[in-house]
Amino acid sequence: MILTAKRLITGDGETVLQNSGLLLRDGRIAAVDTLSCLQNAYPEEEVLDYGEATILPGLIDMHAHLAYWQAREDGKDFDPYLTACLALHNAKTALQRGVTTLRDVYSDDGLCRQIVRAGEKGLATVPRLIYCNRALCITGGIDWQITGGTVQVDGEWECRKAVRRELRTGATWIKVMTSNRTPGVAEFTQQELDAIVDECHRLGQRAAAHASLQPALQMCIDAGFDTIEHGTELTLAQVEQMCQRGIAWTPTIFVHRFVLDRLARRTGRRDEVGLSGRDLQTYHLYHRSLRCYADNFLRFAETGVTLLAGTDLVFADSPFAAVSEELRCMVDLGLSPLRAIAAATGNCARVLGMQGEIGTLAAGAQADLLVVDGDAAAEIGALEQVRAVYQAGRSLPLPLV
Amino acid sequence: MILTAKRLITGDGETVLQNSGLLLRDGRIAAVDTLSCLQNAYPEEEVLDYGEATILPGLIDMHAHLAYWQAREDGKDFDPYLTACLALHNAKTALQRGVTTLRDVYSDDGLCRQIVRAGEKGLATVPRLIYCNRALCITGGIDWQITGGTVQVDGEWECRKAVRRELRTGATWIKVMTSNRTPGVAEFTQQELDAIVDECHRLGQRAAAHASLQPALQMCIDAGFDTIEHGTELTLAQVEQMCQRGIAWTPTIFVHRFVLDRLARRTGRRDEVGLSGRDLQTYHLYHRSLRCYADNFLRFAETGVTLLAGTDLVFADSPFAAVSEELRCMVDLGLSPLRAIAAATGNCARVLGMQGEIGTLAAGAQADLLVVDGDAAAEIGALEQVRAVYQAGRSLPLPLV
Amino acid sequence: MILTAKRLITGDGETVLQNSGLLLRDGRIAAVDTLSCLQNAYPEEEVLDYGEATILPGLIDMHAHLAYWQAREDGKDFDPYLTACLALHNAKTALQRGVTTLRDVYSDDGLCRQIVRAGEKGLATVPRLIYCNRALCITGGIDWQITGGTVQVDGEWECRKAVRRELRTGATWIKVMTSNRTPGVAEFTQQELDAIVDECHRLGQRAAAHASLQPALQMCIDAGFDTIEHGTELTLAQVEQMCQRGIAWTPTIFVHRFVLDRLARRTGRRDEVGLSGRDLQTYHLYHRSLRCYADNFLRFAETGVTLLAGTDLVFADSPFAAVSEELRCMVDLGLSPLRAIAAATGNCARVLGMQGEIGTLAAGAQADLLVVDGDAAAEIGALEQVRAVYQAGRSLPLPLV
Amino acid sequence: MILTAKRLITGDGETVLQNSGLLLRDGRIAAVDTLSCLQNAYPEEEVLDYGEATILPGLIDMHAHLAYWQAREDGKDFDPYLTACLALHNAKTALQRGVTTLRDVYSDDGLCRQIVRAGEKGLATVPRLIYCNRALCITGGIDWQITGGTVQVDGEWECRKAVRRELRTGATWIKVMTSNRTPGVAEFTQQELDAIVDECHRLGQRAAAHASLQPALQMCIDAGFDTIEHGTELTLAQVEQMCQRGIAWTPTIFVHRFVLDRLARRTGRRDEVGLSGRDLQTYHLYHRSLRCYADNFLRFAETGVTLLAGTDLVFADSPFAAVSEELRCMVDLGLSPLRAIAAATGNCARVLGMQGEIGTLAAGAQADLLVVDGDAAAEIGALEQVRAVYQAGRSLPLPLV
Repeated sequence: MILTAKRLITGDGETVLQNSGLLLRDGRIAAVDTLSCLQNAYPEEEVLDYGEATILPGLIDMHAHLAYWQAREDGKDFDPYLTACLALHNAKTALQRGVTTLRDVYSDDGLCRQIVRAGEKGLATVPRLIYCNRALCITGGIDWQITGGTVQVDGEWECRKAVRRELRTGATWIKVMTSNRTPGVAEFTQQELDAIVDECHRLGQRAAAHASLQPALQMCIDAGFDTIEHGTELTLAQVEQMCQRGIAWTPTIFVHRFVLDRLARRTGRRDEVGLSGRDLQTYHLYHRSLRCYADNFLRFAETGVTLLAGTDLVFADSPFAAVSEELRCMVDLGLSPLRAIAAATGNCARVLGMQGEIGTLAAGAQADLLVVDGDAAAEIGALEQVRAVYQAGRSLPLPLV
Repeated sequence: MILTAKRLITGDGETVLQNSGLLLRDGRIAAVDTLSCLQNAYPEEEVLDYGEATILPGLIDMHAHLAYWQAREDGKDFDPYLTACLALHNAKTALQRGVTTLRDVYSDDGLCRQIVRAGEKGLATVPRLIYCNRALCITGGIDWQITGGTVQVDGEWECRKAVRRELRTGATWIKVMTSNRTPGVAEFTQQELDAIVDECHRLGQRAAAHASLQPALQMCIDAGFDTIEHGTELTLAQVEQMCQRGIAWTPTIFVHRFVLDRLARRTGRRDEVGLSGRDLQTYHLYHRSLRCYADNFLRFAETGVTLLAGTDLVFADSPFAAVSEELRCMVDLGLSPLRAIAAATGNCARVLGMQGEIGTLAAGAQADLLVVDGDAAAEIGALEQVRAVYQAGRSLPLPLV
Repeated sequence: MILTAKRLITGDGETVLQNSGLLLRDGRIAAVDTLSCLQNAYPEEEVLDYGEATILPGLIDMHAHLAYWQAREDGKDFDPYLTACLALHNAKTALQRGVTTLRDVYSDDGLCRQIVRAGEKGLATVPRLIYCNRALCITGGIDWQITGGTVQVDGEWECRKAVRRELRTGATWIKVMTSNRTPGVAEFTQQELDAIVDECHRLGQRAAAHASLQPALQMCIDAGFDTIEHGTELTLAQVEQMCQRGIAWTPTIFVHRFVLDRLARRTGRRDEVGLSGRDLQTYHLYHRSLRCYADNFLRFAETGVTLLAGTDLVFADSPFAAVSEELRCMVDLGLSPLRAIAAATGNCARVLGMQGEIGTLAAGAQADLLVVDGDAAAEIGALEQVRAVYQAGRSLPLPLV
Repeated sequence: MILTAKRLITGDGETVLQNSGLLLRDGRIAAVDTLSCLQNAYPEEEVLDYGEATILPGLIDMHAHLAYWQAREDGKDFDPYLTACLALHNAKTALQRGVTTLRDVYSDDGLCRQIVRAGEKGLATVPRLIYCNRALCITGGIDWQITGGTVQVDGEWECRKAVRRELRTGATWIKVMTSNRTPGVAEFTQQELDAIVDECHRLGQRAAAHASLQPALQMCIDAGFDTIEHGTELTLAQVEQMCQRGIAWTPTIFVHRFVLDRLARRTGRRDEVGLSGRDLQTYHLYHRSLRCYADNFLRFAETGVTLLAGTDLVFADSPFAAVSEELRCMVDLGLSPLRAIAAATGNCARVLGMQGEIGTLAAGAQADLLVVDGDAAAEIGALEQVRAVYQAGRSLPLPLV
């Protein structure tokens, strides 16, 4: 089959093809060319023309938690059976938004491995899933209470063993949690961070660090993590170091906006009036974070640091894997739609070591595709007008039930 | 909305309405009447006309195992996460066939409760699920190796305690396994069977017995189970006792045919040539069973015993919840299509204590519906031409992915 | 010291002494007589005159749960440390209301024993505590989810062993839970109930049954329990049997009113409009219960059955041990204030086997006293005007902090 | 409300205000000024005049064990329920003495966290509680037998992990036990002590060392602990190092006097005659300790080292949190009453990082107050004449029961 539409966005941050099409064969993109060339070369091939729409690579969410039951009010009901149901529900939600690949940055022990297996066995339709299994934190460190999803480790050798243990589940990323809400306090020592990254790289895999504040951010850069998650208080000098060392940045902007919007809906206003206790703390923390992004995001983007779209939407009332919302935030802060889309396609593929395989419209790549109405290169909101989603060349019947 | 089609089969074993329709309101059937009456009474109401099709109540599978990973070659991969994936996969398969209610006659401890919860929480689309949780067998009794799905109990008070334990999970049926492949040998003693049924009925619930051979069948009848599962070697006298005591029969014919067909595909012939060991045993057992059904099914049906359609299709290569296949077997053995359909609708509802709620096209019932092309009252094979499935008044988007 | 006041209510259901006083010695009532006789006999003794007040025996709550953290929204915070804090908090609340004795009808394993010890060691000021430690229910029976407070047992010998086990903690009552919210279903079998009561009586202790519905009520009467708790659907014939067999009745009326009032505060009306799900079920159950009490309480009281005041107030927002509210309900239903007071004093003492020791103003009894403003014999509401509380002759400094 | 009295001791070690008052608002001290100024500024405000009394900040006990059941003869009775009862009993005792803040330098795992919670939930009236949860000692180190209250750790990474583990309970101090009764023997190595202090400070918290003898004292100074507990054999040179490094000293003098007094009561004399075995050892140890304090306390105080009042009174027969006794010992050794009071107020607040919040009579501070009869600036014994205790602006009803 040949697919065509008014525009094809290839995912490299700049290219928009017109009058062009994709030849699909055996679940892959067999050729990308002008429509006329394709039709000349393959005169028998059926052509599916999406008209005014945009075709782009399936999106990638670099910061997802596939089944974060721990943030639900009914969390006590969840055992592995129900956790799997939540995972499949979220997986379908992601696919419907055109998110065909997720990096899970921690879930319950063994869950991601089994969800991948369920897909392989034909028991479920799920996005491509890259995962870290559980995250590592220090004893009592951030998210230690997230039973099942984090593991507390201390000292170089417990850290190295934990890296090996998590990789044993099929994980290809290691996730470390290391900054808390307390400014000035890092959790892991430099020695531990160094050991984790070394062990992970030695074994051929990659490492992601949850770090928002100083001095944890500098420590993570020094340790050589592959991605910094959140990075709210990064400085320009640090981002330049990240460029040099090839460290990518997943800012997770939208989740901050989502939480503040939720508080605002409750109080009917956008400041802290009417908030108290933990809500007030959250307001201050998230408000400060959004200010950091407003002040710095575009400056940082201009350094050339690799930007990644991650959603971190873990709440029962939040839209799972709403990558389009994250990209809209990036555009709101001044990034061009094409560069924003690269943060959810080509950039991710490179960071994941899967360039040419996903996140691109190129011959040889997986035919994971998103077709949206309108011109996504001009108006990022078009990403929400999903017309079709292809997974390995197969058009999914929307909506998924 | 008003639904209409050339024929409406109500599920009582005899009634076919023509020129008639159903008014749906709030997930229920609000009225059943001639189409003209309905249109007069509700002139504003949208009419959906399925033309030459047949509308009938959503089917009920009285003998299902929602996630029988134990019969799969890759069974060792299954933990609760993957088991839940299999359960949801089977649930969708059932719904696609128009099977809107399942009685699960054993699955892993806690699975059914959580699948029901997943449905209630909006995390999955699943059939109505009535379940027994685990089945009871004696120490070493049939299926004792089915880890997680059966529990071995011995003696009156272990049996009573087990009844209480299984009901604690929200089960409304108790399942007992009590005849083996060895003719002449029953497993539970009469005292144990009596205790189980007494305890179950005392606590307001129902009991089903897996029994194929003598003397287990007579013992189960004496104990007063509500349904006999398989009942391959039942005698006419016993079936008459069942009529008198209100005990229903779930013969599970098709699964025998399925297993023999599979052996035949392997050897290229329908007799025992080329079989050995366990396969040969299976051949003899299943062949004899099918002969019993062939000899007796129609005679037994004529006693008025309540017939129930159950599939028991637990294999990785078997069609899950293929109720239409079971009904085809019944029709092949001489039952009328309408009476066969009652075995998967009205009869089941009565046995489940849900008459008027499911298994019928009557005002007040849940709008769980199956629409099939062709005349199912004349040709039972029409049940496989699924055109639409309604669950609580909502038309499911087929196929379910 | 000699205490006097305008009225002394002795707790026998009829006697009000005037111009009388109590001589206190060593924590006990040494004499009860006219004030003039006492003053003649003990001319040196200090006289404390409470004027227009009423002196009565310290009240007894026959149905309390000292630390029911399980009904709190913040229940997950509770471990034994915090549970003990809640117990002491409730103990003080009870004492401040003049409730100097509690029968705890189940709490976490070991709690009551240690609270008694804390009192004995001078570490806390607590009411006299009579307790059953944990309650027995069948596997999956009512309240089985109340971790720590109930124990699931099945069969005669598990029941007998459980009786012995609970008594081992110093309990002098055994509590059985045996009717659920499902009409027509009893939980324990007659055989089990008989065994529990037999074992308990054999070992010299008493047994209380939680039973609201039929047939559980008749089964508990047949088994010979010492008290029936709730007994909402008792019949007149059954109450007459209770009289003959010396079985007392703790109706727990107020807690039903409390729950309905709470629902009414939420919806702003007193019927079921605006309620759904579990709340609606609760409304119907509690509404029916209150109607039973309204129809039957006075008729039953006239049989001479021993009435007991029990509160069962286990909610974070309910007034703990509000015996005066329970007595007000009894008076609202037609009982005289003196007979109502007997239900919280003399009757309880008799049922507890402590007549002459507590619940009475008689020479030799413990000087556990309540002094209230106003005439409690005429107006039951006077019990809420607490002026002083004596525990073993010691006036407690109110409020207790 | 405005509080006034003849003297206000502010807690800085030198200031006594006369003709002055405190304005209380919302649980805090809103203003401190001359009474006339306050009355002019707030003419409507009620004035409570304590006459000849002294008002001072609520006292702080820097060395308490809230529930040291391990030192009781009936210790075997104690489980968490009873331990909580003992904790609440001691909490009330402290409050009655005007001790409104305690630093708990070890108690059973989780106890302090739950006592704080009990206060927050309104279940108990307790002093402000700063705690270390369990103390760290080496395997077999001092107090290792104190089940539940200490944890044995060895090596740098076990130590760091233990720091993280204890802080996880909400602790803001880490307590280390490191000198035994054997002169010349230290327990932790320098490497371990350094690791503990580094980890604790890295994570933003403070560390206290139990150390009485050499060389442990020097090692603790070198490691940079925030407070030295006991420090019996400190040298002048070491105290000068402590001054320079900002290390405070909690001498715990009174507990030594208490133990010797108890021995003296038993033998009827103050020397070692009549003592043997462990008692004789205790006599020698405590006698030598008291001589150290007698010889050195005043000299050390003159270096400007920060003095802290800690009681360490853990015996069933000792007065809990008798801070006034500790201050009396300091005065007996030559310190002025005002400087002694600072050791239980302003000095503590500074060391706890709570200056301006507690331990002072200053605008903005918590209204935790002690009112005593007499002139505490002249006669330290006046602290035992408690007239009122305020906790967050609320006058506690004394005695607490």
